[in-house]
Amino acid sequence: MFSIFPSARLRPSPFFEATVTDGVTSFTTYNHMLMPTGFGKPEEEYWRIINGVSMWDVAVERQVQLKGPDAGKLAQILSPRDLSKCAVGQGKYVALCNHHGVLINDPILLKLADDLYWFSIADSNIWFWAQAVAAERGLNVEISEPDVSPLAVQGPKAEAVIASMFGDWVKELKYFWFKETEIEGIPVAVARSGWSKQGGFEIYLMDGSKGTQLWNMVKEAGKPWDIGPGNPNACERVESGLLSFGGDTDGQTNPYEVRMGKYVDLDVPDDVVGIQALRKIKADGPKRHQLGVRLEGSEPIMTAFHWFDIMQGNQKIGGMTNIVWSWRLKQNIGFALVSVDAKPGDAVQVIRDGKPVNGTLCELPFI
Amino acid sequence: MFSIFPSARLRPSPFFEATVTDGVTSFTTYNHMLMPTGFGKPEEEYWRIINGVSMWDVAVERQVQLKGPDAGKLAQILSPRDLSKCAVGQGKYVALCNHHGVLINDPILLKLADDLYWFSIADSNIWFWAQAVAAERGLNVEISEPDVSPLAVQGPKAEAVIASMFGDWVKELKYFWFKETEIEGIPVAVARSGWSKQGGFEIYLMDGSKGTQLWNMVKEAGKPWDIGPGNPNACERVESGLLSFGGDTDGQTNPYEVRMGKYVDLDVPDDVVGIQALRKIKADGPKRHQLGVRLEGSEPIMTAFHWFDIMQGNQKIGGMTNIVWSWRLKQNIGFALVSVDAKPGDAVQVIRDGKPVNGTLCELPFI
Repeated sequence: MFSIFPSARLRPSPFFEATVTDGVTSFTTYNHMLMPTGFGKPEEEYWRIINGVSMWDVAVERQVQLKGPDAGKLAQILSPRDLSKCAVGQGKYVALCNHHGVLINDPILLKLADDLYWFSIADSNIWFWAQAVAAERGLNVEISEPDVSPLAVQGPKAEAVIASMFGDWVKELKYFWFKETEIEGIPVAVARSGWSKQGGFEIYLMDGSKGTQLWNMVKEAGKPWDIGPGNPNACERVESGLLSFGGDTDGQTNPYEVRMGKYVDLDVPDDVVGIQALRKIKADGPKRHQLGVRLEGSEPIMTAFHWFDIMQGNQKIGGMTNIVWSWRLKQNIGFALVSVDAKPGDAVQVIRDGKPVNGTLCELPFI
Repeated sequence: MFSIFPSARLRPSPFFEATVTDGVTSFTTYNHMLMPTGFGKPEEEYWRIINGVSMWDVAVERQVQLKGPDAGKLAQILSPRDLSKCAVGQGKYVALCNHHGVLINDPILLKLADDLYWFSIADSNIWFWAQAVAAERGLNVEISEPDVSPLAVQGPKAEAVIASMFGDWVKELKYFWFKETEIEGIPVAVARSGWSKQGGFEIYLMDGSKGTQLWNMVKEAGKPWDIGPGNPNACERVESGLLSFGGDTDGQTNPYEVRMGKYVDLDVPDDVVGIQALRKIKADGPKRHQLGVRLEGSEPIMTAFHWFDIMQGNQKIGGMTNIVWSWRLKQNIGFALVSVDAKPGDAVQVIRDGKPVNGTLCELPFI
């Protein structure tokens, strides 16, 4: 691991100072911002998410705000998923695609009002994308990056923490639904969401000057449940089969290849970007699919800044897009993006540092 | 400084292994790739660029390739600079803007053929941008990221090194012009360009599997001139007044604010993205401009992941977008993006860690 040299091209989050105080040791960059990736005790941080409650600086999940009379129209044009029944206060997971049906982001769409939407995005520039499509189609909508920064509270005890802060109404929130509120005068939206399968909430901070204050409020409220710092957890998300756009995808990946077909509605209007291409991809059948890989061996393998080739004999059938040591399964696991000819149960060889490691393909999720 | 956690969202460059071998100590991320930012001896690395010759992994300067019958048409639509006289083999520095005239990148455009162009981009996603505009306008052009990775050789002795490798013809190359060639069977383009004002070349490697080989060839060829590893040098580029898109700009910056007005041709056709907005900005006069700041004090100040507020008395007039210790000027300097009411010679206070540091505005470049 190497150091990150400071530059204003990469921005800190409103929670940056608080995470430094709490002992952050490493970062990644995401949407031109720094995101914590560890606090020095990886196994403890993992079990905290599985058994307890963990708080995460996920301000890098930036919002692409669509505001104006054509906001809803643009949201639908950009999303190959039927949004006609999306209610104010509801969120939906969507597969943004380009005109060729290639996945370009997998955000949560939040409908705040009939003329106000947010795409809470993964790591790619959807501001430029939305601006280009809106301007070229002459839509009356303003696209911006508002002062909004999510803080995630994840784990089986997250609901108790959030209810103690905001009230029991949060227990009634359905998955991906949210409500705007405030706490000690700080404007926030509280959503039942988060990049884990252990349950939890995201608090969308709507005043970046209050990051440390909100962080410390959550930390204090969570004490009875032994809350501690964490971050989107590589091990948990792989065990749970959660996609990382840009990590598990490449420049040709379509939603059908990465288990997102159920979020594509082929009967949306013809003016939705990419829908014609997606209909054809669906009709022809995708060429690749996403599976799991279980590797032999009992030593943890470090992931890398690249995919690992997956071979069957002398034939490359695809790539292993991540590797983590699973503390629950006690083996190295990861995702495969491979030819549809490769099936769960198949033996494969994963090339690491030039040498093959034996593995077996399987269905996702692992747990 | 903190560690970077590995992820396939962030890719290594073809020169990654070679730079690790040569002792790289820190990185930044840029276009979702890792770029070296130091080899452990900052002052030595600086003087090597000023007085000698330095080799840089700048593979992060990715190429947005436009290929097809409408490639030239799209290049012009995206560029508010007259390209009608751009020849094959010529490069031009362009200010890509959105429909509101806001700067979204400042690439070098390279014309490889009448139907083949590259934008050699700064740190923002122009693939999505170009794809959206091309598709929405129904243009017959394919946009892709080719296997092309620049390696820069910079400094007053760079020409001698490049000529020893490629021949004396490189001495005739005009600034930003380039030529496709090969060396020991490796396909490359050699351009007179690079992100310093010390002179030099960029070798565009067109086979990513040959990164280590090309790096070592340059290293060997440069030995008589005492070549060594380096990277786009924060100190040299600030002294020389070179813009860092995304670092020295924000989401409202137009070309006139950052000394790029000379690269905007207001008489390009009306279908060029942003040209109507740029004509209005020019007519109304920009609200901010870019100057230098010289700070008092003889201790080096570290730059940060954010801008520093610039005050005149109680009034905030803008931001200081970078700070470096200038080894030639022996003071801390940086760029200011400030109200046009602020003039060179004005005394200012720059807020660092909550405390004011006295400084003076000046013209750019510093040297």
